[in-house]
Amino acid sequence: TVLKAHDIRYFMYIGGNDSADTTARISRLAQETGYELRAMGIPKTIDNDLAFTDHCPGYGSVARFVAEAVRGAGLDTEAIGVVDTVKVIEMMGRNAGWITAAAALARIDGDPDTAPHLIYVPERRIVMDKLLDDVQKVYDRLGYCVIALCEGARGEDGDLLSATGGALYTDSFGHKQLGGAADYLCRVIADRLKLKARFDKPGTIQRMMQSQQSPVDVEEAYTVGATAVQKAVAGTSGYMVTLVRQSNDPYRWTTGLARLEDVANAERLMPDEFLNAEGNNVTQAFLDYARPLIGPPLPPVARLKKYMVAKKA
Amino acid sequence: TVLKAHDIRYFMYIGGNDSADTTARISRLAQETGYELRAMGIPKTIDNDLAFTDHCPGYGSVARFVAEAVRGAGLDTEAIGVVDTVKVIEMMGRNAGWITAAAALARIDGDPDTAPHLIYVPERRIVMDKLLDDVQKVYDRLGYCVIALCEGARGEDGDLLSATGGALYTDSFGHKQLGGAADYLCRVIADRLKLKARFDKPGTIQRMMQSQQSPVDVEEAYTVGATAVQKAVAGTSGYMVTLVRQSNDPYRWTTGLARLEDVANAERLMPDEFLNAEGNNVTQAFLDYARPLIGPPLPPVARLKKYMVAKKA
Repeated sequence: TVLKAHDIRYFMYIGGNDSADTTARISRLAQETGYELRAMGIPKTIDNDLAFTDHCPGYGSVARFVAEAVRGAGLDTEAIGVVDTVKVIEMMGRNAGWITAAAALARIDGDPDTAPHLIYVPERRIVMDKLLDDVQKVYDRLGYCVIALCEGARGEDGDLLSATGGALYTDSFGHKQLGGAADYLCRVIADRLKLKARFDKPGTIQRMMQSQQSPVDVEEAYTVGATAVQKAVAGTSGYMVTLVRQSNDPYRWTTGLARLEDVANAERLMPDEFLNAEGNNVTQAFLDYARPLIGPPLPPVARLKKYMVAKKA
Repeated sequence: TVLKAHDIRYFMYIGGNDSADTTARISRLAQETGYELRAMGIPKTIDNDLAFTDHCPGYGSVARFVAEAVRGAGLDTEAIGVVDTVKVIEMMGRNAGWITAAAALARIDGDPDTAPHLIYVPERRIVMDKLLDDVQKVYDRLGYCVIALCEGARGEDGDLLSATGGALYTDSFGHKQLGGAADYLCRVIADRLKLKARFDKPGTIQRMMQSQQSPVDVEEAYTVGATAVQKAVAGTSGYMVTLVRQSNDPYRWTTGLARLEDVANAERLMPDEFLNAEGNNVTQAFLDYARPLIGPPLPPVARLKKYMVAKKA
């Protein structure tokens, strides 16, 4: 009705599943009532959990932030690991681990002994004894351990980690306030392994750091928007523009279309082939998928060589 | 003895107060034992709390990170403020609020109604009723509120905020694990003001994000190091190189020297003229001080104009 009153004939909604759902409903309603409207969905969600598109605008930039942030936090922990032994970095994601998985791009020259040493996503339930064993092994080998943890990580029982350990505080109404997943994990590690554990939680910063824009992401975001407008003007309605990958290296892509109703009812979690069997790391297939999306390589890391000086006497 | 055994005659220690103290002791010991050693201190601490130097290498870069991160988190909160009303961002600093104060550089065109709306540092004790009143006022005016909070912020009683509210969890040894200041403040705001509050805690990321290096900071860090070496070769010992500001605009600086023993025993907190009377913001004098240190302006922020469409009928 609002659209009608203002004689609006084109409706473009930028967003994730819910936005696709809304756009699909509006498109259907317009059709049913005989109102001529062209409605198109434009994908955009840092969560990267839309189906039918190879990836979502927004993801490349948050992935770039996460990669550089975890690399930095890893070097920091390596430097002061004698004081703060275990570092947990909490990334966004309720059901899907895409953002957390991007931490794997932090590894220096792909070396698995550089941060992050362990990655836990919601797609794999966490067996706490196994996790503690993982941490202890990394600590025994390196003297410190950096963990990328998804805020939506779940324990064996399927409950959020944050919910499991979160009954930390009860407000004056008796409402339990939940702690975060990383906070909880730090407490468990300190308690059971006797290792000092601290967490970083970039929160909204991870999705809003302008300097961390991936140029690939920016270009793709612009293109899907422009494409939606072109398609709508040409007469298309009820579809979302998608990104279609043609090759990883060199990275090549084009756009496609998916029916909004299909997009609205699907959620794309990380597929099995992107996660290792142990449930504590990603695979090479994921690295190949994610690497092109963050744009140019991260800034180089300088390491000093160690020169030993001979004793005088 | 180790220095002697390896015939080491120059000792340069890069760091903060403790490093200056160590260097001063080594210099004194060498003098007392008649060992010819030239010991120099090179300032470097993100905390910016060394005395006798205008500021410390490391601070400009962390300040740049904090400014951009808080700007981003602020725009994010503005966009989704209907869901997450209050955002608390926790910055490093045990006794000094320099890093937290740098959040003020996030404000878009200096507009005090852009994030951060409130700033709390350890130099001013927090009266919780006043803080809650501050938050409520900002919320009533804007519909959301972004707070920059120092991890070392203290309550009226002088205790750390994190300690006050932190007895959230007791491990199997009966040790109380402290929650963080931001986590605590979010709980109090939710409990007392009934506003949904979440926190970001960049933690070690704030001091290790390579892309956020301030070019001014990088140049100064290089220069103080090179100067220390030149001075030592020329015969100086027992001093720390300092940064001396000559003017704010245009920003001009040179180097100086301070006795290591003086540096070791001092801690520079934020001076009164950098903090407002209400204890919830910085002053223009601080902005003038900090602005040149972060290098070029932050990336520009685009805002869409609102075009109203006339009703058809």
